[in-house]
Amino acid sequence: MKEFDSSTIEAMAKVPRLNLINSVTGYKSANLIGTISSDNILNIAIFSSVTHLGSNPPMLGFMIRPMPTAPKDTYKNIKEQHYFTVNSITSSMVTDAHHTSANYPPERSEFESTNLIPEFLDDLKVPFVKGSPVRLLCKYLNEYEIVENGCIHLIASIKKVYVEDELMQDDFSVRLDLSEIVTINGIDGYALPQLINRFGYAHPDQPTKSIL
Amino acid sequence: MKEFDSSTIEAMAKVPRLNLINSVTGYKSANLIGTISSDNILNIAIFSSVTHLGSNPPMLGFMIRPMPTAPKDTYKNIKEQHYFTVNSITSSMVTDAHHTSANYPPERSEFESTNLIPEFLDDLKVPFVKGSPVRLLCKYLNEYEIVENGCIHLIASIKKVYVEDELMQDDFSVRLDLSEIVTINGIDGYALPQLINRFGYAHPDQPTKSIL
Repeated sequence: MKEFDSSTIEAMAKVPRLNLINSVTGYKSANLIGTISSDNILNIAIFSSVTHLGSNPPMLGFMIRPMPTAPKDTYKNIKEQHYFTVNSITSSMVTDAHHTSANYPPERSEFESTNLIPEFLDDLKVPFVKGSPVRLLCKYLNEYEIVENGCIHLIASIKKVYVEDELMQDDFSVRLDLSEIVTINGIDGYALPQLINRFGYAHPDQPTKSIL
Repeated sequence: MKEFDSSTIEAMAKVPRLNLINSVTGYKSANLIGTISSDNILNIAIFSSVTHLGSNPPMLGFMIRPMPTAPKDTYKNIKEQHYFTVNSITSSMVTDAHHTSANYPPERSEFESTNLIPEFLDDLKVPFVKGSPVRLLCKYLNEYEIVENGCIHLIASIKKVYVEDELMQDDFSVRLDLSEIVTINGIDGYALPQLINRFGYAHPDQPTKSIL
């Protein structure tokens, strides 16, 4: 077993430390966040920190690194336009999705530099990603600065959900593996999960039962 | 394509809404958080919201639902004892890991009601989970109440990392698939990922290159 204590981690070079600490909290969600600027430039950027925050009302959160680090365009656009989209990433999209992390200037749309295609739903001007099996329309609610490291925890309400038919289960859960939605390992690893089991609500002193 | 707007989601019954909204943000991390009470009762509870917050200093965060909803013991123990552990979950552990979500009274340790075995490292009194391939010792730093829904975003520093040898890569990234670490789909689905690719740092106007 390898062990890394605080002083070892502190003494590591930047990239090895990023690799280690980004990996050890487990798999992360893989989403493309779509925004539009006040100059109508479409922006699409990969995020690995989108997390469910509550279902009633439906909310999510994700982390923005301290300014002026990227992804500055996403944050600026959300603050100006309020609405943004969250788009799941499939195995066929990973190369292009990763490329959206390149530091393009604000006037360059990542849609022009990748094979990702913008799609506009319900006459909204904020872009979704064509072919993404699970897509969310979100609206900015609030932000919390994490004073310990200067990151911003951005909070949004989920205003609309679009899901491909074949993923929807009878109990309204969404089986992400049925359309090859990926998950992220560390800073640059993309992994494809397969569902192994589902369990019923757990009760004390009763066996946990599969519901798959 | 199925579509759910705000009024449709609001009108849904609780369980279908939980199933839908917990699934659509993508795969989630699967971790067991280990704590000890002031009465020396060992607690272990599953969490799907542990998220990397930064690498320098190494920090993570996770969500605590509004009191008095579970997992009240985990929160109380962390506030009293400051230290806790984060333990990855493998495919062979999923049934027991899910069972830790049952609402046992504070005087009952989940270790006694499952096949999970506590392990004590470095003479610490807070329990780790034996056989978990990636384990973290964490210390409470701060908490942020999400005023929009009353959840608490608990922030902690990562004080020590323990990783099984076979997962460590030369660049200090940790390949979670090499020991069958799982990820969570929705509220009750457990999925097993396989790494499909890793990519180098993305630069504008240069092809994204595999580094696997």
